[in-house]
Amino acid sequence: MAAPKKPWGGRFTEETEEIVEEFTASLAFDRRLASCDIEGSIAHAAMLARQGVITDGERDVIVNGLKEVLGDIEAGTFLFEQKDEDIHMAVERALISRIGEVGGKLHAGRSRNDQVALDLRLFLRRETAGIIDAIGRLKGAFCRVAETEIDTIIPGFTHLQKAQPVLLAHYLLAYREMFHRDEGRFRDCLGRMNVLPLGSAALAGTGIPISREYVAELLDFPCISENSMDAVSDRDFAAEFLFASSLLMMHMSRFCEDLIIWSSGDYGYVEIADAFTTGSSIMPQKKNPDVAELIRGKTGRVYGNLMTLLTVLKGLPMTYNRDLQEDKEPLFDTVDTVKRSVAVLTGMIGRLTFHRERLFEAAGRGFSTAADLAEYLVGRGVPFREAHHIVGRIVRCCIDEGRDLPDLILDDFRRFDGRFDEDVLSVLSVEDSVNRRRHRGGTSKAGVRARLKEIEKDCE
Amino acid sequence: MAAPKKPWGGRFTEETEEIVEEFTASLAFDRRLASCDIEGSIAHAAMLARQGVITDGERDVIVNGLKEVLGDIEAGTFLFEQKDEDIHMAVERALISRIGEVGGKLHAGRSRNDQVALDLRLFLRRETAGIIDAIGRLKGAFCRVAETEIDTIIPGFTHLQKAQPVLLAHYLLAYREMFHRDEGRFRDCLGRMNVLPLGSAALAGTGIPISREYVAELLDFPCISENSMDAVSDRDFAAEFLFASSLLMMHMSRFCEDLIIWSSGDYGYVEIADAFTTGSSIMPQKKNPDVAELIRGKTGRVYGNLMTLLTVLKGLPMTYNRDLQEDKEPLFDTVDTVKRSVAVLTGMIGRLTFHRERLFEAAGRGFSTAADLAEYLVGRGVPFREAHHIVGRIVRCCIDEGRDLPDLILDDFRRFDGRFDEDVLSVLSVEDSVNRRRHRGGTSKAGVRARLKEIEKDCE
Amino acid sequence: MAAPKKPWGGRFTEETEEIVEEFTASLAFDRRLASCDIEGSIAHAAMLARQGVITDGERDVIVNGLKEVLGDIEAGTFLFEQKDEDIHMAVERALISRIGEVGGKLHAGRSRNDQVALDLRLFLRRETAGIIDAIGRLKGAFCRVAETEIDTIIPGFTHLQKAQPVLLAHYLLAYREMFHRDEGRFRDCLGRMNVLPLGSAALAGTGIPISREYVAELLDFPCISENSMDAVSDRDFAAEFLFASSLLMMHMSRFCEDLIIWSSGDYGYVEIADAFTTGSSIMPQKKNPDVAELIRGKTGRVYGNLMTLLTVLKGLPMTYNRDLQEDKEPLFDTVDTVKRSVAVLTGMIGRLTFHRERLFEAAGRGFSTAADLAEYLVGRGVPFREAHHIVGRIVRCCIDEGRDLPDLILDDFRRFDGRFDEDVLSVLSVEDSVNRRRHRGGTSKAGVRARLKEIEKDCE
Amino acid sequence: MAAPKKPWGGRFTEETEEIVEEFTASLAFDRRLASCDIEGSIAHAAMLARQGVITDGERDVIVNGLKEVLGDIEAGTFLFEQKDEDIHMAVERALISRIGEVGGKLHAGRSRNDQVALDLRLFLRRETAGIIDAIGRLKGAFCRVAETEIDTIIPGFTHLQKAQPVLLAHYLLAYREMFHRDEGRFRDCLGRMNVLPLGSAALAGTGIPISREYVAELLDFPCISENSMDAVSDRDFAAEFLFASSLLMMHMSRFCEDLIIWSSGDYGYVEIADAFTTGSSIMPQKKNPDVAELIRGKTGRVYGNLMTLLTVLKGLPMTYNRDLQEDKEPLFDTVDTVKRSVAVLTGMIGRLTFHRERLFEAAGRGFSTAADLAEYLVGRGVPFREAHHIVGRIVRCCIDEGRDLPDLILDDFRRFDGRFDEDVLSVLSVEDSVNRRRHRGGTSKAGVRARLKEIEKDCE
Repeated sequence: MAAPKKPWGGRFTEETEEIVEEFTASLAFDRRLASCDIEGSIAHAAMLARQGVITDGERDVIVNGLKEVLGDIEAGTFLFEQKDEDIHMAVERALISRIGEVGGKLHAGRSRNDQVALDLRLFLRRETAGIIDAIGRLKGAFCRVAETEIDTIIPGFTHLQKAQPVLLAHYLLAYREMFHRDEGRFRDCLGRMNVLPLGSAALAGTGIPISREYVAELLDFPCISENSMDAVSDRDFAAEFLFASSLLMMHMSRFCEDLIIWSSGDYGYVEIADAFTTGSSIMPQKKNPDVAELIRGKTGRVYGNLMTLLTVLKGLPMTYNRDLQEDKEPLFDTVDTVKRSVAVLTGMIGRLTFHRERLFEAAGRGFSTAADLAEYLVGRGVPFREAHHIVGRIVRCCIDEGRDLPDLILDDFRRFDGRFDEDVLSVLSVEDSVNRRRHRGGTSKAGVRARLKEIEKDCE
Repeated sequence: MAAPKKPWGGRFTEETEEIVEEFTASLAFDRRLASCDIEGSIAHAAMLARQGVITDGERDVIVNGLKEVLGDIEAGTFLFEQKDEDIHMAVERALISRIGEVGGKLHAGRSRNDQVALDLRLFLRRETAGIIDAIGRLKGAFCRVAETEIDTIIPGFTHLQKAQPVLLAHYLLAYREMFHRDEGRFRDCLGRMNVLPLGSAALAGTGIPISREYVAELLDFPCISENSMDAVSDRDFAAEFLFASSLLMMHMSRFCEDLIIWSSGDYGYVEIADAFTTGSSIMPQKKNPDVAELIRGKTGRVYGNLMTLLTVLKGLPMTYNRDLQEDKEPLFDTVDTVKRSVAVLTGMIGRLTFHRERLFEAAGRGFSTAADLAEYLVGRGVPFREAHHIVGRIVRCCIDEGRDLPDLILDDFRRFDGRFDEDVLSVLSVEDSVNRRRHRGGTSKAGVRARLKEIEKDCE
Repeated sequence: MAAPKKPWGGRFTEETEEIVEEFTASLAFDRRLASCDIEGSIAHAAMLARQGVITDGERDVIVNGLKEVLGDIEAGTFLFEQKDEDIHMAVERALISRIGEVGGKLHAGRSRNDQVALDLRLFLRRETAGIIDAIGRLKGAFCRVAETEIDTIIPGFTHLQKAQPVLLAHYLLAYREMFHRDEGRFRDCLGRMNVLPLGSAALAGTGIPISREYVAELLDFPCISENSMDAVSDRDFAAEFLFASSLLMMHMSRFCEDLIIWSSGDYGYVEIADAFTTGSSIMPQKKNPDVAELIRGKTGRVYGNLMTLLTVLKGLPMTYNRDLQEDKEPLFDTVDTVKRSVAVLTGMIGRLTFHRERLFEAAGRGFSTAADLAEYLVGRGVPFREAHHIVGRIVRCCIDEGRDLPDLILDDFRRFDGRFDEDVLSVLSVEDSVNRRRHRGGTSKAGVRARLKEIEKDCE
Repeated sequence: MAAPKKPWGGRFTEETEEIVEEFTASLAFDRRLASCDIEGSIAHAAMLARQGVITDGERDVIVNGLKEVLGDIEAGTFLFEQKDEDIHMAVERALISRIGEVGGKLHAGRSRNDQVALDLRLFLRRETAGIIDAIGRLKGAFCRVAETEIDTIIPGFTHLQKAQPVLLAHYLLAYREMFHRDEGRFRDCLGRMNVLPLGSAALAGTGIPISREYVAELLDFPCISENSMDAVSDRDFAAEFLFASSLLMMHMSRFCEDLIIWSSGDYGYVEIADAFTTGSSIMPQKKNPDVAELIRGKTGRVYGNLMTLLTVLKGLPMTYNRDLQEDKEPLFDTVDTVKRSVAVLTGMIGRLTFHRERLFEAAGRGFSTAADLAEYLVGRGVPFREAHHIVGRIVRCCIDEGRDLPDLILDDFRRFDGRFDEDVLSVLSVEDSVNRRRHRGGTSKAGVRARLKEIEKDCE
């Protein structure tokens, strides 16, 4: 019986079933790694020549062949074939068919196991760097709106109930803090990702006299992996990327939730520009915050991708197992989802119209300065717990009488406690309420301005 | 300013941003629903005519137009445009451009909210029915191997430690039970899925005098939804499908785990046909159980898809929210993953070679009949707990002396307990051990044969 | 060396490390199964006697002993010891110490593997039945409010934007539909759960002449498991329970989200009774919808429990593996979470005050009858797509002029299209809008009343 | 009507329902934070006095009272009451009942929102530090075994098929690399966790003249949070801890999977000490790797906890919502699970007996040096792809003839290719195979020794 035609088919007596080829092939998605694969192969060829495993002439033929293959792929003229299985085999086949048997020398000293680990790290470190930049732009967009809205006072919420007045800028900078932590997580992840796995071969390393240090230099890796078995089976960096993405999406989902609520009819705090909304096929009046809803929804997608990879990895025996092929699609999907979500939110944040008067009016209603009133009593020596109780009774009484705090006069207060004085009325002003919270991290305008100053490079 | 060109654009003053169009468009994936969408629209048009909302002549023009659009889509000649947003708008645009303004009459009495719910149910009920059939074939494939291997005895495992001898057929039928439950879950899910949502319009129903009953009849739905608000926001059937798929994948993952271990070098219990394995790019001797590994890995993917949809749905306000658009890709991916995994496993199970002698020999080693020995003593009136302890000491002694149970003679047993008699040696036979477990659900050959008889339609 | 003291310790030469005892012991949580365990053991003993494996006298001693042990456990006087490992061993130890060596006869013909499967099924079928009843009460509570509020009109939302007026009763019955599907899923799950696993022993069945049919009769199981290997490793019923619970929690989380938004200051649609809210430690005015928030939050907990079990099961080799011990805590936690959440929501729904005038007024604003206007034109032969566009322009114009639809007179409409007639003004009424949607599933009062009639047993 | 008795009850007219108290109370689990809560309160009191909000005398009374309360809690004599809701209220109530109304002054300038954020960070930073230490011990345990087994050669696996011989020490150090990355992730997480939130009050900060800097100094926080709204709603540090824990558990699960397979009967590579295994209640011969199975299973539990928190956080509106109360149990459970799992694995790794001869023999079988043979040909100028094919045919032929590579003589090789020479036989030695892979990260003994040297502080 003729040996099967697979490059690895020497020991096999039977051709692969077509259904198996379809089932196992990753080419439909891993072709996205083509440029990384070829970048890695060029470095590998250069190293093999330097180490004398191939000649300089062979290297030149191989490198030129690889560049031509990449040209074809980028031009869309490359013919992928299902039997190629994966991008590595597709490139090797094309290379050999173009430059002949010398192309078969390229795979010396490596295996698809370390090759795909390399491709994935090259791909993801580039994308991670791009996402870090995009987060920078997102932070900047929030900062710029914060600067513009430095005078806008809004009701701050807990439990979606009005709590205390805050600056809109303070609210927006809260998100900036979240995105800043996200950026930190992506940077930490990038550090652990930016490690050269090539040279680990199948699992044990190789007897071919390679120089991993030289490949690392060519591909700009600051470190090389310290253990070949770990290197071919490690997908920590991918899981970590998915987790950092999950938190970033979660933060955006929270802002989107706020935006959806605030732009709903009964709030009317903010309006999203037409260009960032869509309409209804049946209700002519509708203007829907679809972008915000989709970002919120896509959070589920990224969570799902994280769960996918964690499940794949759990209980996997060492070292490489084909299960690991399932790492790519969740990663690719997450890269795309995160990049698009960040970009569209960055665009949208600048196209919001905050209804300042409506916000200011809302900030003052709903007993929003009740805590200030309690703190006023504390300033007069009343234990906080007692002060809280006195103000609670004032609020209860107002509710029963259909009044709000600004409607009260000094005598009203005195009915509840004799320690209230003329100056109590001033603590009910929302501006004063905001500006009294002047410690670091508080919502006073001076504090928020100072913070904007500190992070001003974000805001440019 | 000219009104934007969107079909819903009457109230808008600004065109949608291109990045927003890209971000919100579902056409790249929901085009998969094209035939379901058109099937639903044809039924809707027929109903509108029957109710006098449109004329019979209009209906004919619309229906013919829809069929031509479907023809174009199926032929691959349909030009999708990004600004179409989704498959519903793409079909409507094509229809109107083909048949003129009368095409604009089709959307009366419905909204994309109920339309997409209909499309998804039409799509998924067809796919679910297909998966139920595929599970039938999978059960059949396991049954047929069970019949062929009815004489094969294997070591049964708990904790991946040899426990007791069992029939290979019994082991295989255990999986048949799991797949049978999976089938039941898909059937239950199909029942809840097979409900007509059309007529719910955006959320409240419609004032157009529709007949939902007639549409249900045309589209072969046994029930219609009882509440319009529920109908447009309900994705239970999708989540339930994802869950049923998760358990099915999980069951297959367990078989694959066994297969991977049993075909590994040191077990050598079973060999997978070359056509269902692949090789290594660096190690010429390798023959890897990639199919089994991928099924195991893809379990994570389906779990992730389930988690995606659950996350999307959690805490969503009523009724339709754009987040729900995120339901499709996890569903499509799961449908494909499940169908391919079931098909490839069905093919592979018939291409396994069980090494019967190796299995028989393995089934007899490792003190696998120790429990029989304890039960022998119970038959002689020894309390089980004491019997267990006596046999435990025999095993301990054998381990110390490097012997196994079949190596012992009567005197050896008597050294531990006087209640052992001549007939003790017979309980050590693996065949007898298997066949003593003759109650329903036990591993005796008679029992397994009877079970195969009961489920024989599976095995044809 | 003395043999260790574990009941299974015969073959061991070394005592278990204390840290290992702590790590592997399940007694801290599986003691919750005590009554189920003893119920199963009593049936097992009765069967052993009937089959002649033990005498009737031995059975009586054992059964009485078991009842006394149960009495101690229920009275809280039972002394659990860490070295008992699990509830099965704890009960057996206590039994033997109470009735002597005859207690050691009880374990004949079974293993902890099938025993724990039995206990878990006994426990969960009781809890599932209880949850089905609780869902019935929850449906009833929603129905009763729907009946009370049959005249209340509210704004219906899509995308959290006002869409169309609907009946509050219609909205509430949408949730009733969800809970009804939940009930169906729990029932389906109960069917697959209510199967006797005992008699499967460790994995292969037993050579002891047991009668599984008799045990099934005693314990009221309609079916017995068909395959011993499947029976000891099957946790489908547990995963299915967790999934049914996840969807139930998800549905409640959606209602809670609505409730949180609707009771927030700027909506003011509904007020939750003080008894179902809590306050703030710092802001005296706050009244927070904590119960609703916690139900929403606890949805995550149940999702997590589902993910836990799915992860545990993935890729597990046959048959029983100790990993399965991790099934219990997520189940127990889910049972408690679901029961408490359903009960507290059932209580709370009856303690909501809907602000009917506020709702009615909100239902009429925001162009909520724009779709009715478009349907009016369709009734005059205008293609829906054109009608939609005409109304869109009317809305746009109103927004620019700060008006809403009810502010318009006939001439205003005629400026946009000559086909508007005197009767157009009537379509703008929210009552008419609601009542025009009179098909099955629509929001008309007649339709909702009819539906309430159909499901009236829910409402009692 | 009398005002309810809750500390926040001033504005309420109705007592909380008992079922609501039960449902919302967190005291059953957050009492675990008691010492952190009191530590934070002591610092807060000290700061209030320094700032002149309370007198030094009041501070002393409060601080002493708090210490006495802590004493009671630690002694187990503290009486928790359900109506206390949470640990903060329980401590405050006890304090006031002990020292009188002055205790009510403690809560000035803070809210439970920032208080619980502080408690959680104090708790988790201590536990994280403890886990980092525990990982250090785990790495050390692996290193010590690696040193002991420096001469042991094992078969390295890919796809659970024998691939190439490697050093056992190399294999063990692969895990050390994973744990080392885990440690890095916990450290990064600790950095983001170690930030003082107190002073953020409910959401906006406080008007009381606090000094957050002084509190940070007292509690040894290197940074203070920059935005009060972010600080009370941020649980990133908790999610990040759960993720770092998930990967750590995943790594341990992989080792456990290997251990379970390697200690199963047909492998017999390793034996776990009796003290780290358990037996069977029915099969006297069983010795099960329960510890390894449980660690593998508990991975699912930690994944579930991560999914719980991610789900809770998704789409949550700003700032604090009661959903966040659901953060604690998954955290506590994960802390316990991780600590116990690491400790028990650290103990077990030192109690494994590797069967060196069996491993060596297994490492040499199964054509494990086929890749060396191909590399031999590459050394003779054969393109790798051709070399791979030649060796593949040799392997195929051996399989057909029932031989393995070491059985071949030079003539056998020459039949396949004339470029084989006398020295080919030497490449078949497993020692040489291992030692040829001498580049950084490879499995050669020299390389592994060098690596052990580099990380020697791990190994002490």
